[in-house]
Amino acid sequence: MQIAILLYERFTALDAVGPYDVLSHLPGAETVFVAQRPGPVVNEVGSLHLTATATLADVPTPDVVVVPGGPGWHVQMIDGPVRQWLRTADEHSTWTASVCSGSLLLAGAGLLTGRRATTHWLADDQLAPLGAIPVAERVVVDGKYITAAGVSAGLDMAFTLAGRIAGDAVAQAIQLAHEYDPRPPYHAGSPDHAPRAIVDALRARRNAILY
Amino acid sequence: MQIAILLYERFTALDAVGPYDVLSHLPGAETVFVAQRPGPVVNEVGSLHLTATATLADVPTPDVVVVPGGPGWHVQMIDGPVRQWLRTADEHSTWTASVCSGSLLLAGAGLLTGRRATTHWLADDQLAPLGAIPVAERVVVDGKYITAAGVSAGLDMAFTLAGRIAGDAVAQAIQLAHEYDPRPPYHAGSPDHAPRAIVDALRARRNAILY
Repeated sequence: MQIAILLYERFTALDAVGPYDVLSHLPGAETVFVAQRPGPVVNEVGSLHLTATATLADVPTPDVVVVPGGPGWHVQMIDGPVRQWLRTADEHSTWTASVCSGSLLLAGAGLLTGRRATTHWLADDQLAPLGAIPVAERVVVDGKYITAAGVSAGLDMAFTLAGRIAGDAVAQAIQLAHEYDPRPPYHAGSPDHAPRAIVDALRARRNAILY
Repeated sequence: MQIAILLYERFTALDAVGPYDVLSHLPGAETVFVAQRPGPVVNEVGSLHLTATATLADVPTPDVVVVPGGPGWHVQMIDGPVRQWLRTADEHSTWTASVCSGSLLLAGAGLLTGRRATTHWLADDQLAPLGAIPVAERVVVDGKYITAAGVSAGLDMAFTLAGRIAGDAVAQAIQLAHEYDPRPPYHAGSPDHAPRAIVDALRARRNAILY
């Protein structure tokens, strides 16, 4: 089972590494980071470099496609190599997954038309114009498409996907090995319950966060 | 504020990238991945390479030290360059932090003697022989030392540390930007409540997981 995780400049590191660290532990998984060019790919902060060990052409038909988000997403919205690869890879994939603004790339490639999907809460108005049906849930499964809300939701997506692929017991064993029993010290992870002033402050910085 | 995240061969990616993706968003933070040699450092699965952009010598006195865990930890337990760097860096640090088996490296360097600390649940018998006081909690703060339980606990540690460094409002804003409102699809993240058969299966594979 080949799992391809897409990298592009100004991706968000946790969007890619959260799912990687779950899915790479599936039995029989071969996980590969792919990008237009091989070599280190810089994240949106500028201080993290993750290596793409394969080009898009090297991995034409992965079984699982994972698309992270990050401010660099909109550069990839042109009808270029990444979009072409997404379309071809998706024709063969068993699962096509995204985290955060990664779902906008999938939708932009026409893969989520008429499908229920989610994205980062600050981007929730972007899915409908791209043909998807926005759903304000943390993880959304529609057929073979599984999309996650912002950044850390990729972990919950990955455990859900691990269970679908390999069964509950395997997913639970990975969860226990990763001690994924989260206890956030603050209750501010969703606009539904974060302090109003903080929600408003992030909305005011929306473009700086999303692009 | 300089934040140094240690890398070494066969580290666990999420141990490093979880805290990175939180702490690198602190105002005024300069986050740098350090290792004995600069360049890509391979994780424990063998398919992820994160770039160390600085050597240990390049970053002698960071304000914050973060030590990830991973099966490669025990290779670093010798009295070599990494241990020497940990001791020197800790003399100057404001905070010294670890995730998972990273606390064993701190304890091995003599930094947790008589301190309360935590680690991966499968390694909980390793701290006392190294002089620390093991505590079965997800995040433990003792003075300037903050240690996290296994892998994903690094996220909860990082948000706790972000709050101590920059205040609750900043930590909450980062939490909301990362949409850290976890909803694990399974309730198996702790040996306290995971299915017994899965706990036993991991205990049987303990050495393969820890080393």
